[in-house]
Amino acid sequence: MTTPSPLALPASNASPWPPLPPLETPVALLDTDTLDANLRRMQQRVQALGVALRPHVKTAKCVPVARRQQALGAQGITVSTLREADEFQAAGFADILYAVGITPHKVPHALSLCERGCTLRVIVDSLAAADAVVQAWQAWQGSPGAARAAATGGRLGVLIEVDVDGERAGLLPDAPALLTIGQRLQAAGLLDGVMTHGGGSYGMRGEAALQAFAEQERSRCVAAAERLRAAGLPCAVVSVGSTPTALSAATAAGVTEVRAGIYAFFDLVMAGLGVCRPEHIALSVLTSVIGHQPDKGWVLVDAGWMALSRDRGTQNQAVDQGYGVVCDEHGTPVDGWWVQAANQEHGIITRRDGAAALTTHDVTQRFPLGSRLRILPNHACATAAQFSAYRCISQGQLGETWPRFGGW
Amino acid sequence: MTTPSPLALPASNASPWPPLPPLETPVALLDTDTLDANLRRMQQRVQALGVALRPHVKTAKCVPVARRQQALGAQGITVSTLREADEFQAAGFADILYAVGITPHKVPHALSLCERGCTLRVIVDSLAAADAVVQAWQAWQGSPGAARAAATGGRLGVLIEVDVDGERAGLLPDAPALLTIGQRLQAAGLLDGVMTHGGGSYGMRGEAALQAFAEQERSRCVAAAERLRAAGLPCAVVSVGSTPTALSAATAAGVTEVRAGIYAFFDLVMAGLGVCRPEHIALSVLTSVIGHQPDKGWVLVDAGWMALSRDRGTQNQAVDQGYGVVCDEHGTPVDGWWVQAANQEHGIITRRDGAAALTTHDVTQRFPLGSRLRILPNHACATAAQFSAYRCISQGQLGETWPRFGGW
Repeated sequence: MTTPSPLALPASNASPWPPLPPLETPVALLDTDTLDANLRRMQQRVQALGVALRPHVKTAKCVPVARRQQALGAQGITVSTLREADEFQAAGFADILYAVGITPHKVPHALSLCERGCTLRVIVDSLAAADAVVQAWQAWQGSPGAARAAATGGRLGVLIEVDVDGERAGLLPDAPALLTIGQRLQAAGLLDGVMTHGGGSYGMRGEAALQAFAEQERSRCVAAAERLRAAGLPCAVVSVGSTPTALSAATAAGVTEVRAGIYAFFDLVMAGLGVCRPEHIALSVLTSVIGHQPDKGWVLVDAGWMALSRDRGTQNQAVDQGYGVVCDEHGTPVDGWWVQAANQEHGIITRRDGAAALTTHDVTQRFPLGSRLRILPNHACATAAQFSAYRCISQGQLGETWPRFGGW
Repeated sequence: MTTPSPLALPASNASPWPPLPPLETPVALLDTDTLDANLRRMQQRVQALGVALRPHVKTAKCVPVARRQQALGAQGITVSTLREADEFQAAGFADILYAVGITPHKVPHALSLCERGCTLRVIVDSLAAADAVVQAWQAWQGSPGAARAAATGGRLGVLIEVDVDGERAGLLPDAPALLTIGQRLQAAGLLDGVMTHGGGSYGMRGEAALQAFAEQERSRCVAAAERLRAAGLPCAVVSVGSTPTALSAATAAGVTEVRAGIYAFFDLVMAGLGVCRPEHIALSVLTSVIGHQPDKGWVLVDAGWMALSRDRGTQNQAVDQGYGVVCDEHGTPVDGWWVQAANQEHGIITRRDGAAALTTHDVTQRFPLGSRLRILPNHACATAAQFSAYRCISQGQLGETWPRFGGW
């Protein structure tokens, strides 16, 4: 795999569709053909590794997207908030990993999900957190809620979070506390295994570095699992993942499941890492031209940072994409133009190479008032979060509107 | 006015309130005592200038906040989206300026607000936009909608946007097109005046520079108004504003109204500019400690960029505030600590001066698992947008929950 030019598109993608119908912009467009291809690619990839895929739903926060992942063979989901757990539980998802370290006051909420029939796994990386979970769980035993959980098949499990890259949370694989925590959880029957998130993969450059990083993620998480087992503790679940490592790993030996999220939509950060190409980006923001500053070569659009998000994740990559890559309304990149700056509801589109050679004609005739453009996002999680729904598009035609939720 | 230290707080503010009740974090807290003081300060300031205050509601997007502004004497509101216009119209606000250049396909939506009784003003900065508004308005004449507007007192007006600082949209005060556009609008009876937004004030440093910039904003916008009048065109409205210029202007001669938005909440960017002090920041994010990396001096909290926003508006100011200033749960800054980094649902709190002198005790005992902190936002507009409600707090006690909306 080589890093593609962020602006290169096969000529076949330039084929024109009829104009989109009127839409009050900005709008989050979701190309479901691209989405489906992305979902198939990851499902096949993780199946080829011989393990289960547990998609992270924090990117889309959208039930129809998760149902498509489930239909392709995904097993369970990963969430970043208990709000996501609530929403997906209500939609029928009953196997959920809450992959952010749980704090004591959230344990009752977690148990309420078990009472509604969920197998909910939470994560801890300290004895204090393990104690809090065990104590709340013990206090809950014998309650009407616990009886409801038993009747509905709901159950709480705990994974110990492992730090494989020094980037965020988790215990080092050789930390003495790993066993203490394991014993504490196992005494309550709550120890299900270990998990990690190799977020450091976002800083890797090139396929060799990504593959080596994936091996680091795998081997360190498996090492933690083996320490637990060597101490006589169970470790049924060994859960790893990030989109870059899931797509780059040479082996998943010792792993039971892989988690990934952004692959459903992809974005310019992932394209910059080389794990997708720009034509794999399923999410874009449809925007309208609201004005020009011809002397400066500026085209003003109604997608500012409120629509695009403030995420500037490509700033430190080889190609800085500003606030996003500019495409025509059908998604074909307009070579040489980018969103250079963003106010709350204004985006400023300019040529990347500066405005020197521009004429008034260039900006006002090429991008007339009211004409529409699509912006590819730096970071799909952040851009999607600014919208309450996706307008689906397939083969250039508008289709369903899929709701998404936010908040906590 | 001198630029205060962003971390300095009067000792009297450190007085302890009883602990807040349990809340599932992250939560947007709105201190209504601070809010009210901010609202009074701006209302008094603009009244002292002898002009009307038309608050921008894009920061709070919250009806109870706007009602408080109205009760203090504000005249009309400013919005950044037609969604805001819809929401506030439904809540009884009938004098609205939509302060983002209108694109042709949004004119019918704008007219629908007139049909509901609004005096709605839109803005244009090109003949193409003026033509689009005039044509849609003429086509609407004689329609049942226009009759409803007449019956309810609704009316469309247009302001010409003036560029006073080269930062975004608008015509230069001496642009020939100003008169052409004015004549086009006046022929339809739609010309109400001129407006500008001195967003360049955000880049000023020090009171003298702010005051000079406010004079630039005022004088250039008034110059555009005088050109229209000299050409025999009406210019009833001369609307200027931004929070920094509103607070710094020495005179509002020739101006009829001042717009400002962020002053309701203030934020670290405004504190960095010196137009408020940290204790004037009414919005904060309540967060809980979810873990530690004691070896690195890290405290992990459940407010990541999804709660704090990706806005790093203080990055280029004299004091970079990271992803926000750390306070105790009552809002008193914890000197020396900041949110250094943010993932989607994880914030990483560290000492600004690095972790060298830290012991495990420092991080795990000073900030125990489950303890709560408040984070002051870089940019209140961006942080508030991540939440669907504000939990109000007054004198350290939780009060009402105020809904806010987002989207388009």
